Amino acid sequence: MALKSFIEVHPDSHFPIQNLPYGVFKPQPGSSPRPGVAIGDYVLDLSEIASAALFNGPLLNNSDCFHQPNLNKFVSLGRPAWKEARATLQKLLSATEPTLRDNATLREKSLVPMSRVELLLPVQIGDYTDFFSSLHHTKNCGLIFRGPQNPVLENWYHLPVAYHGRASSVVISGTDIVRPRGQAHPTPGSPPYFGPSRKLDFELEMATIVGPGNDLGKPVDINNAADHIFGVVLMNDWSARDIQAWEYIPLGPFLGKNFGTTISPWIVTLEALEPFACEAPKQDPPPLPYLTEKVSKNYDVSLEVHIKPAEHEKPSVVTRSNLKHLYWTLTQQLAHHTINGCNLRPGDLLGTGTISGPEQESRGCLLELTWNGQNTLSLNGVDRKFLEDGDEVTFTGYCKGDGYTIGFGKCSGRIIPSAP
Amino acid sequence: MALKSFIEVHPDSHFPIQNLPYGVFKPQPGSSPRPGVAIGDYVLDLSEIASAALFNGPLLNNSDCFHQPNLNKFVSLGRPAWKEARATLQKLLSATEPTLRDNATLREKSLVPMSRVELLLPVQIGDYTDFFSSLHHTKNCGLIFRGPQNPVLENWYHLPVAYHGRASSVVISGTDIVRPRGQAHPTPGSPPYFGPSRKLDFELEMATIVGPGNDLGKPVDINNAADHIFGVVLMNDWSARDIQAWEYIPLGPFLGKNFGTTISPWIVTLEALEPFACEAPKQDPPPLPYLTEKVSKNYDVSLEVHIKPAEHEKPSVVTRSNLKHLYWTLTQQLAHHTINGCNLRPGDLLGTGTISGPEQESRGCLLELTWNGQNTLSLNGVDRKFLEDGDEVTFTGYCKGDGYTIGFGKCSGRIIPSAP
Repeated sequence: MALKSFIEVHPDSHFPIQNLPYGVFKPQPGSSPRPGVAIGDYVLDLSEIASAALFNGPLLNNSDCFHQPNLNKFVSLGRPAWKEARATLQKLLSATEPTLRDNATLREKSLVPMSRVELLLPVQIGDYTDFFSSLHHTKNCGLIFRGPQNPVLENWYHLPVAYHGRASSVVISGTDIVRPRGQAHPTPGSPPYFGPSRKLDFELEMATIVGPGNDLGKPVDINNAADHIFGVVLMNDWSARDIQAWEYIPLGPFLGKNFGTTISPWIVTLEALEPFACEAPKQDPPPLPYLTEKVSKNYDVSLEVHIKPAEHEKPSVVTRSNLKHLYWTLTQQLAHHTINGCNLRPGDLLGTGTISGPEQESRGCLLELTWNGQNTLSLNGVDRKFLEDGDEVTFTGYCKGDGYTIGFGKCSGRIIPSAP
Repeated sequence: MALKSFIEVHPDSHFPIQNLPYGVFKPQPGSSPRPGVAIGDYVLDLSEIASAALFNGPLLNNSDCFHQPNLNKFVSLGRPAWKEARATLQKLLSATEPTLRDNATLREKSLVPMSRVELLLPVQIGDYTDFFSSLHHTKNCGLIFRGPQNPVLENWYHLPVAYHGRASSVVISGTDIVRPRGQAHPTPGSPPYFGPSRKLDFELEMATIVGPGNDLGKPVDINNAADHIFGVVLMNDWSARDIQAWEYIPLGPFLGKNFGTTISPWIVTLEALEPFACEAPKQDPPPLPYLTEKVSKNYDVSLEVHIKPAEHEKPSVVTRSNLKHLYWTLTQQLAHHTINGCNLRPGDLLGTGTISGPEQESRGCLLELTWNGQNTLSLNGVDRKFLEDGDEVTFTGYCKGDGYTIGFGKCSGRIIPSAP
């Protein structure tokens, strides 16, 4: 019989007692930010639970990690502390445990309706890295930009290709995105185009939140890499394809990407995802020893992309994909990142890259869906090649358990026009 | 007659009263980090000057910006506060002002011999960006990797090309650099090389420290860009050429760069550099309006690179270059970075890219000096194609004034072997 909470949770809710994802919120507009977990339609205020001395395990007993304005301190503590917190919270929220259930004053203080809270970035992100780990996405991009001779470059099969993104412009779901201005390819005899991007796109990604870091000069062993991963969020790596195409040779994406990256507010832990682990795709050629895992796992997370044009009441689904399509695993990404001695810090964000599946309907960005604007996508009668002002793009993700759903909530953002 | 301090300063010292660069230091191993300025062979402890209520101008009077463990708060205050601090400190340190000169107790507390202090990173760096703004460097790299047909790509003349680097691995001068391990190009029929980098290099750069930032979605106007620049440091963008060459297509440098970046501890302000401003090179084609400046300035800063092999007593000079060789100015870099709405934050680091001059002796990295290892460089009888374990690389930079030197001190790091 499945674990149940004394709080009523609909079977389709993303936040049953089996999930308990971590976020940071303000219960009221004036209050200070504090950590919480999502449970049904409520947020449990962990600063109140800590103040009530209910984190009474040996590791969290005297910790101030839930009296911080972000989760960096908690995620730095590592898996034993995460397991202890999860055990404490699952017990406290269970239907059979009276401590919180029967204490009206504490319930009043610590359980805040989710509809009322303001959700903030859950961690202070020191560095944000973005990988390029879906073979389907990589192949499609290669076909579009380089043609059918050699769509996937030789290095791609040997290492998880990545670049550094911009930490300052990572924003929380619900933040509007201003259409970026910039340069694009000149037409012959003219200077480059300059103006609002004409090829604004989303990229369907997920991202790892790093737990304990590593010291500079000390790589993380591939078989310990999972212990450096606290959890996972949804991520939209907004991309201006025209700006990117003109600027990116030879040093990679810059202004085509760094105007905004949206993440979902709730970090779903690896513990909650564990029942949905699945075998990662076979890698051929076999990876070098530093990337060879004893157990190579992906997670079966269904992903959807919805677009709602300003004039529509309802969004249209444009993509259905799945995290399990990744070629390079989350742990391979992390181990590769540190093999040269590069140091990760608690709260760092590692994007997976666009997660495209094998089918046309599972392509993770408009570049692929409209084949760089050659085709048109119909959203319930409205045509799109790229995003228009007023479009709202929403990602969602979930794992279906037996009678419950482990969900990621939403990762959403609306395009607003460039300043004149 | 030049301004003089009551502290004796040798004419060749980098730190006369005309300079007053800002850093962060610990006066004793156990003390807390605090801001200071360099004056001759001393560091003036700004937390002590603030505690003595000597910052008595209207802007800094009640500020706690000098009671912080880094300079982020001070640099965020903007040019009027920087000018006020400079005026206060130049007066306080001048030969004719008794306040500090004749107060033995305060002198004892606030003036610490530089030989005794530990210097730390002066700012907490939110994001680190690296540009590619020297035409000579760009042309040499193009000749080496693509040949003489088209050494400089078309986009380069239209925008200051840049990529995001890694903030976590920026270290202060004097920190050892562990030789990175990683993958490099396979030989036909074999898997990629894996092991310690065989092509470890330095890159002679300078870097802007950002003052006040800008909000996401709000670009900085090119003609206001200088007010967002607090000052400049020396920077060594250590590079593993073999790792970089194999990984960088199509998303740019990653593990070939992010194992370490060294900066000098003293931030020389734009105020101190102003007497050494010079005209920037003429740009043809003319830049787009958002990159067109009313006054386009470089700074005449002489730069030197020294390498000391482990077995040598003395370093050998391998490069003499100058900041004035930059094609894209510091202000163009900053304005370009924000044109798409990307937000900068106080303390961000913007590297110039390798600063090579037009002559063979002014090339800013070994890649150019040895033409990717085709030639050998002799260091006083010891041959080098790339860096060997034990090599210590030191950059220095200075502007020669009339009877005084505005210097940057040193930016230094020694290569230590990869872990086995």
